[in-house]
Amino acid sequence: MSDVTRADGRALDELRPVTIERGWSEHAEGSALISFGKTRVLCTASFTPGVPRWLTGQGKGWVTAEYAMLPRATNERSNRESVKGKVGGRTHEISRLIGRSLRSVVDMRALGENTIQLDCDVLQADGGTRTASITGAYVALVESIAWAKQQGHIPASAKVLTDSLAAISVGIIDGTPMLDLPYEEDSRAGTDMNVVATGSGAFVEVQGTAEGKPFDRAELDQLLDLALVGTRRLAELQRESLAGVEA
Amino acid sequence: MSDVTRADGRALDELRPVTIERGWSEHAEGSALISFGKTRVLCTASFTPGVPRWLTGQGKGWVTAEYAMLPRATNERSNRESVKGKVGGRTHEISRLIGRSLRSVVDMRALGENTIQLDCDVLQADGGTRTASITGAYVALVESIAWAKQQGHIPASAKVLTDSLAAISVGIIDGTPMLDLPYEEDSRAGTDMNVVATGSGAFVEVQGTAEGKPFDRAELDQLLDLALVGTRRLAELQRESLAGVEA
Amino acid sequence: MSDVTRADGRALDELRPVTIERGWSEHAEGSALISFGKTRVLCTASFTPGVPRWLTGQGKGWVTAEYAMLPRATNERSNRESVKGKVGGRTHEISRLIGRSLRSVVDMRALGENTIQLDCDVLQADGGTRTASITGAYVALVESIAWAKQQGHIPASAKVLTDSLAAISVGIIDGTPMLDLPYEEDSRAGTDMNVVATGSGAFVEVQGTAEGKPFDRAELDQLLDLALVGTRRLAELQRESLAGVEA
Amino acid sequence: MSDVTRADGRALDELRPVTIERGWSEHAEGSALISFGKTRVLCTASFTPGVPRWLTGQGKGWVTAEYAMLPRATNERSNRESVKGKVGGRTHEISRLIGRSLRSVVDMRALGENTIQLDCDVLQADGGTRTASITGAYVALVESIAWAKQQGHIPASAKVLTDSLAAISVGIIDGTPMLDLPYEEDSRAGTDMNVVATGSGAFVEVQGTAEGKPFDRAELDQLLDLALVGTRRLAELQRESLAGVEA
Amino acid sequence: MSDVTRADGRALDELRPVTIERGWSEHAEGSALISFGKTRVLCTASFTPGVPRWLTGQGKGWVTAEYAMLPRATNERSNRESVKGKVGGRTHEISRLIGRSLRSVVDMRALGENTIQLDCDVLQADGGTRTASITGAYVALVESIAWAKQQGHIPASAKVLTDSLAAISVGIIDGTPMLDLPYEEDSRAGTDMNVVATGSGAFVEVQGTAEGKPFDRAELDQLLDLALVGTRRLAELQRESLAGVEA
Amino acid sequence: MSDVTRADGRALDELRPVTIERGWSEHAEGSALISFGKTRVLCTASFTPGVPRWLTGQGKGWVTAEYAMLPRATNERSNRESVKGKVGGRTHEISRLIGRSLRSVVDMRALGENTIQLDCDVLQADGGTRTASITGAYVALVESIAWAKQQGHIPASAKVLTDSLAAISVGIIDGTPMLDLPYEEDSRAGTDMNVVATGSGAFVEVQGTAEGKPFDRAELDQLLDLALVGTRRLAELQRESLAGVEA
Repeated sequence: MSDVTRADGRALDELRPVTIERGWSEHAEGSALISFGKTRVLCTASFTPGVPRWLTGQGKGWVTAEYAMLPRATNERSNRESVKGKVGGRTHEISRLIGRSLRSVVDMRALGENTIQLDCDVLQADGGTRTASITGAYVALVESIAWAKQQGHIPASAKVLTDSLAAISVGIIDGTPMLDLPYEEDSRAGTDMNVVATGSGAFVEVQGTAEGKPFDRAELDQLLDLALVGTRRLAELQRESLAGVEA
Repeated sequence: MSDVTRADGRALDELRPVTIERGWSEHAEGSALISFGKTRVLCTASFTPGVPRWLTGQGKGWVTAEYAMLPRATNERSNRESVKGKVGGRTHEISRLIGRSLRSVVDMRALGENTIQLDCDVLQADGGTRTASITGAYVALVESIAWAKQQGHIPASAKVLTDSLAAISVGIIDGTPMLDLPYEEDSRAGTDMNVVATGSGAFVEVQGTAEGKPFDRAELDQLLDLALVGTRRLAELQRESLAGVEA
Repeated sequence: MSDVTRADGRALDELRPVTIERGWSEHAEGSALISFGKTRVLCTASFTPGVPRWLTGQGKGWVTAEYAMLPRATNERSNRESVKGKVGGRTHEISRLIGRSLRSVVDMRALGENTIQLDCDVLQADGGTRTASITGAYVALVESIAWAKQQGHIPASAKVLTDSLAAISVGIIDGTPMLDLPYEEDSRAGTDMNVVATGSGAFVEVQGTAEGKPFDRAELDQLLDLALVGTRRLAELQRESLAGVEA
Repeated sequence: MSDVTRADGRALDELRPVTIERGWSEHAEGSALISFGKTRVLCTASFTPGVPRWLTGQGKGWVTAEYAMLPRATNERSNRESVKGKVGGRTHEISRLIGRSLRSVVDMRALGENTIQLDCDVLQADGGTRTASITGAYVALVESIAWAKQQGHIPASAKVLTDSLAAISVGIIDGTPMLDLPYEEDSRAGTDMNVVATGSGAFVEVQGTAEGKPFDRAELDQLLDLALVGTRRLAELQRESLAGVEA
Repeated sequence: MSDVTRADGRALDELRPVTIERGWSEHAEGSALISFGKTRVLCTASFTPGVPRWLTGQGKGWVTAEYAMLPRATNERSNRESVKGKVGGRTHEISRLIGRSLRSVVDMRALGENTIQLDCDVLQADGGTRTASITGAYVALVESIAWAKQQGHIPASAKVLTDSLAAISVGIIDGTPMLDLPYEEDSRAGTDMNVVATGSGAFVEVQGTAEGKPFDRAELDQLLDLALVGTRRLAELQRESLAGVEA
Repeated sequence: MSDVTRADGRALDELRPVTIERGWSEHAEGSALISFGKTRVLCTASFTPGVPRWLTGQGKGWVTAEYAMLPRATNERSNRESVKGKVGGRTHEISRLIGRSLRSVVDMRALGENTIQLDCDVLQADGGTRTASITGAYVALVESIAWAKQQGHIPASAKVLTDSLAAISVGIIDGTPMLDLPYEEDSRAGTDMNVVATGSGAFVEVQGTAEGKPFDRAELDQLLDLALVGTRRLAELQRESLAGVEA
């Protein structure tokens, strides 16, 4: 890595301070309040026996997600989507990404005819809200599966999860690839990439976007390397947070 | 007071543990994370120079509020109002109550042509979410006014606030009036009242509802007495939380 | 009472002229066109055997209400909520108040698994539209219950109603408490209160709001006294209007 | 005409009893409560100086209309369009018809840069609600123009109206053409036609629909003859109602 | 006919070039891409066994239609109705017209408990989009019925269609009646009429509107004559397009 | 490449037949009807002088896009988003992707304060609708810029486009990477990737998703290679289609 200095003094391949407060909610079957630096997301998992109608009777479960931001999570207040009467494109897109990503590590047959709804609500935003959401939602998901096993909704022996899952952003700023961008860096990035990867290092989602000039294969490769450094570290933190949870 | 025992061991005229974490948000001009027992509400105040078009040029400011609940703030997940595409009646009603209450202690001329938008987002609900919202929003409001004075948007000498403001619920359960009802008590209450009062003990809103049998004048009087015990105590806690803030 | 003169020459504790035209509608099972002075509200009760799904099989009925204003009921035309695509906060709040109030005098077991939907449409508004709505809706409700007994949907012996119900507004204008405020007085009131009470004089809803300066206990007491003068008189008028109706 | 008997004993070319209560509203600049038999529509005209943005500066006025039904205007209650969050196709279509029809008799240059908004709210429906709406809206329109002349918004000499306007339904039931169909006849009509005509007998709208089997030229001719009998009679009734109004 | 010259050189009673590309869609059970001059509409028929709930068990089918325009079908781009969140009045009205017209030539008992949904999407608009839609939708409808017979959803012997159906616009421009108006003529027409007629020359819908001055009986008669010239010619073109289709 | 046979007989790195009908629309400033096999998308570019308010006065232009599907573009009819009253998540996401991608090859300063709105309407869908949309929208965009230069809205010398742009899908089916997936292959793909690339072979968007099991670095590399084969070929076809267009 180069010797470029980041505003917060981090190394180019270093995550911001990450905290995961598992079991934050008194009500939800699973929950985690996760922070990537100043970004804070409350993730809850709601477990319900039964599946949506279109899936009934197939012996398979369902996992879905919704993402949202509090109006003053950001530096400028944005209007509530409930008041506007519609969910914006960005919200939709991130909700779909979170749900799809989590489903990739769930064995729906092992889950049985049960539904887990993840909610990721951004209480404070400073870049990386979608990656923090995925990383935290995975923890809430695990907790809710453990709960469901304790309650007998899922057999204790069922292997519902096929791997762990985490996500991180990477980007190229002034020609330099960097890991885990806060808002200030993200808004200056020429290329911006979100990577969702399993604990064993395989890719689930790779979404790279040229905000400025298009990127070449070499840059893409560097970004992928960097991202896997991040998701590997997040997988460790998730493991620590979930110590003792039997899912 | 009688010797009825409450599930959580409190006296009939005792508040649940109240905590106020002022300055919770990195972005908002004012903020407070307030808890009444397990009820937790994040209140932010967004200060913007200027007023809505219908008020322009009158030398007066504006204060408004929006209330919402996270989908899994409650024991059963409720659908997001943004996804449903409309704000429910209860949400509307509470938003209007919060805004109206706060305006009653603001001198709009002293505020000048500035707008303060309060957002009260319930992260976890266990009864009393509207009263916690008003009580916390007042703290965020004060902090935002102090900020505006520091920034020069409002003259330091302006007396924007005419009094402090807090709110509490009271109710009659099995014939016994009680202060600050958690969800379990609230759902059993025959009469339910929310009282918004100033620090000097005058009423700003009194909303009493017979959920079961209608109530008489004597019961009403008991409930009002009890409520003022609560709002007086909350006013002290607000004062402590705001120590050193010049608004 | 003091010797303050009101614009329309009324005594401070005097209602505006009240008329109740019961059975206005050819179609509805119950109906009343009620006037409080220039305020005119058409109230209909639609009786349907059966209850909403969430209530099925519990042997209990349901009563609900919707309130709305014609666009030119007021001095300035307001846009239709159907065209705006959403129901406003004020409309929601009043609809909820009407429904809740009426439910307080209905024995849902005696009603059986039947639904009564009240609709209160303000044809002309001059203050007190919510109180006229509740007072008129009660009359329509009674008429619809009588209809249902005649049709055999409810046993003739069932005691569905536990009391009668009426509502009135009171307020303090320039320091003087007054009964039944028209728009002109209402807009000048420092404190404004709506009281819903039973025929036997118990409270069902008390909603007091300080529009200007907060109010004290003595003022609150005066307003409640005045309100009960009004609801008592309305109960008589309802009784006259319902003479011969067996509900 | 044939000797077929109608349920209400009317001749085939006879209108139901028509009443027009002009000046019903205390607030609107023009208004009429019109009845065609049991069908009752409240029509108001709201006059506002100025025109919508797209018309500004062209020296021309604008006339538009909205139609709606109260939920229990009909025999079965229908859900409110405000609650459903959208205006239905039928409502849209009739609103457009009313506005277009009225514009055909208004000289927009003579009206000047002023807007008149007609609202036709069906309080009770028994067939012919759109034709009663147009006929009543014309009366409210005239009254509002007279008001605007008195207020000086329009010069007293301006000839804003080029003719009067009325509308009626006709239909073929069991092979017999009839005038002014109540609901019971309308629902049995094989062909159904609404005709909007000027006081001098010219057509503004002709909308004929085969509900059952398609209709031929001879039937069309009979229906048009019958309709003009109706609109001629309505024009007389409008004239009587507007006696003394200078528009 | 007079010797007025039209911008495109057509005779007054001449259609624009009409093309019907039947079977345009790979997916739909019936389809036609129809052009009236530059107006191009893609019509598809979607056949589904079963009927909407309100019709179940009556042994009858259902035919319905939706009309829409692509945003840049017109000379100026219009906003998408999906983005605006509501269907406009004109769209609603035309959708209803198309559905109602097609139902007039379908024997619902012969169709059996099956639903056919027509979609008419205007790819390019130059006047007459609703008449092209009806004319093209009829072709798609026939094709879908033939498909349903081949698939055994309807007995081959069933006589589902009672006649053919086509529609055309006529109008009076500068006093001259003309057939099939493109946008440029339509926008100048004083009277504008859409006529839907069967192959045997009976009327299904007649919708005449005075855009400028009201029209008299003689003008109405001329327009109807002209329209039938058009629908007769369209019926021939439909027949050619459907050669070999057994419906 | 392996010797796996595809259902349509194509080589693994072969595109479906691609046709681009430029200038399809009579009204739009730029347009192209593009086909990737049975997938057909009508792309229009609407050029408007001026920019949205938030961009005014910065000397820069704006390019945005909307994507939609006709209801019967697919094998099963889907409900219209206009009728549902909201735009779905998938539609939003693709609209955003198209707009973002096109902006990456536009020099907004060279475009000046002008707006280009792309509309991509899928007339028939068989996989790859988003990639066909981007590829076709680029052609429409170029045509609209040429138009704007001819009209003098943009100086003829301005270099508005920095490169050409095309997009293609790639996926892994039963372990074999393939180019340009029709619906049947897409629904069986374990990994699915959409790549947007410039004519010079740099990446603008890379969106890879594991539908089944997560993918490794080697697979990712193969997919990227294959995608560039496709976008290179599409760039040639675009060039041919745009021969003679001066943008």
